[in-house]
Amino acid sequence: MMFIDACYRKPTPRPPVWIMRQAGRYLPEYREIRAKHSFLEMCGQPEVVREVTLQPIRRFDMDAAIIFSDILLPLTPMGLQLRFAQGEGPVIDNPITTEADVAALRDPDFSKEMDFLAEALKITRAELSKDKALLGFCGAPFTLACYAIQGHGGGNFDYVRRWIYSNQATFRALMKKFTLMTVEYLKMQVAAGANAVQIFDSWGGALSAYDYLQFVFPYVKKIIERTSMLGVPRILFVKNASHFRSFLRTSEAEVIGLDWTMPMEESRNILGEDYAIQGNLDPMILFADKDYVVRRTKAMLEVNYGKPGYIANLGHGIHKETPIEHVAAFVETVKTFDHATGPDF
Amino acid sequence: MMFIDACYRKPTPRPPVWIMRQAGRYLPEYREIRAKHSFLEMCGQPEVVREVTLQPIRRFDMDAAIIFSDILLPLTPMGLQLRFAQGEGPVIDNPITTEADVAALRDPDFSKEMDFLAEALKITRAELSKDKALLGFCGAPFTLACYAIQGHGGGNFDYVRRWIYSNQATFRALMKKFTLMTVEYLKMQVAAGANAVQIFDSWGGALSAYDYLQFVFPYVKKIIERTSMLGVPRILFVKNASHFRSFLRTSEAEVIGLDWTMPMEESRNILGEDYAIQGNLDPMILFADKDYVVRRTKAMLEVNYGKPGYIANLGHGIHKETPIEHVAAFVETVKTFDHATGPDF
Repeated sequence: MMFIDACYRKPTPRPPVWIMRQAGRYLPEYREIRAKHSFLEMCGQPEVVREVTLQPIRRFDMDAAIIFSDILLPLTPMGLQLRFAQGEGPVIDNPITTEADVAALRDPDFSKEMDFLAEALKITRAELSKDKALLGFCGAPFTLACYAIQGHGGGNFDYVRRWIYSNQATFRALMKKFTLMTVEYLKMQVAAGANAVQIFDSWGGALSAYDYLQFVFPYVKKIIERTSMLGVPRILFVKNASHFRSFLRTSEAEVIGLDWTMPMEESRNILGEDYAIQGNLDPMILFADKDYVVRRTKAMLEVNYGKPGYIANLGHGIHKETPIEHVAAFVETVKTFDHATGPDF
Repeated sequence: MMFIDACYRKPTPRPPVWIMRQAGRYLPEYREIRAKHSFLEMCGQPEVVREVTLQPIRRFDMDAAIIFSDILLPLTPMGLQLRFAQGEGPVIDNPITTEADVAALRDPDFSKEMDFLAEALKITRAELSKDKALLGFCGAPFTLACYAIQGHGGGNFDYVRRWIYSNQATFRALMKKFTLMTVEYLKMQVAAGANAVQIFDSWGGALSAYDYLQFVFPYVKKIIERTSMLGVPRILFVKNASHFRSFLRTSEAEVIGLDWTMPMEESRNILGEDYAIQGNLDPMILFADKDYVVRRTKAMLEVNYGKPGYIANLGHGIHKETPIEHVAAFVETVKTFDHATGPDF
């Protein structure tokens, strides 16, 4: 698979392309299904998951499909009461406040408690064309902890940082539980058919470099260490992490995802030869006129001209109001760009 | 003044210290006054402004006072309908949507339309001890534009970025108007007694390095260029700007403010010898126990040990629930740390 080759920095005829949150609300065929089910209902029904996971591939023919799910789902079998409130996004009704709350978190048995996800991966992999990768994913422990502590997403995570500094031992205990859980969660996804996994640390950049290194990064590294034997590439995506890209270099993930704020060439230089990179067009550029979309996509590709280990993507999830024809223009520009193939000897 | 010396990288016996948003809600004496007035009423009354500006100095004896005001106030005389909604923060009821909206913005005459601020600066400067600096400030054009376009703050500025890419010429016209206005606004503040000014680009980091350079930074540079003859130091504070610190190096401001995410030593290396730096403790650390507050403050000071051109501060505005005794511990730690004075020959 071209996608997997690129993860391992092997030469590919062109960069593979996919789009974060590609199975989602910008697609009319997705909205049609979503109108009949709640979000959590959709996640729990393998046939529905397969259908919405494959929708963008049918329309745009990306090189990878990402299983339709949510990073917070594994918190439910741990004992956190997760719901998706209309217009509010995810809410946890019993957020973590004490050491006892952390101690009470359960060790899920994913083979039983999230069998719907394993089944969805299995039937999606069976239908997906063999040259395309199927991606599993998880939230990184810090991002999960942000939701678990704050009870919801968004904001500037002032409360979370305040809580961490004031409850350092409890926070570390929480991070340990989430780390061990995440390793099992990824193992289950790979066993069910995922060809690669992405670890989303969506809120990691809220911390200083020092604090990410002290409180968070050792847990991320542990996940990567303990999933090495699975033999699939791991994509580590830490949003707003410009200030500690040099740590990410020691992560031993195969791929580092770059958000749109991270200059690609500079990031390559910081990360060095051992990493493939993925990204990073600002998703909001897809709202400009089509010529501008193409121009900026080409600029992104130009930076990676002739370099192995590059996966074209946006720098964050696609926005639900994105014009479909501009998504097509983005994918087509990647596919038809004059990509250098490098010396053939 | 020690503060001004530090801005110009002259040797000082210790780093000067102040705290962003130091005149504010974490102080009971502030809340007492605030209970009697709306926020905008307070800003409009010079005696009230003087009082709340000086409150933190009386209590903690910082080396600089920052005039109590808001970056959005100059938008009112330009014709934008600004109000501060309970619990919502600032709201602009007629946000910019078209070229005509930009064309309709007025050129304020600050000597008449914001005479209250000039008067406040004058009477505050008269009462402030001569060894302490009085700071004026403004929002950078992009941050003002975020409010003017979106109509409110917060969020991830998806809408603003989308608007910019789709309305590039109109956006540049808006930036030009805000730039010219800001130059006049700073001139007025310095004429009225400000010894230094801080330019807040609080949302600048939402843009990629490329887009900040294309759409924003030339306007920031213009402001700095056109305020050079005022003879006061300019502090440029762009939040979340780790990914384009190398551009800030060409700003010709005297001081670069660092938020808590930017590693201080690395930032010094990127910015080079021409800049003083200011910052950058995570304000949320002040919620930890006192020993930890002192430990992290010392770590921040240690990095700057013996180096000229350092102003101690938090990495962002102080939170309204911050324990007062930890603010005192922060300031005291700066004042009593064993600061190197460098060779005396």
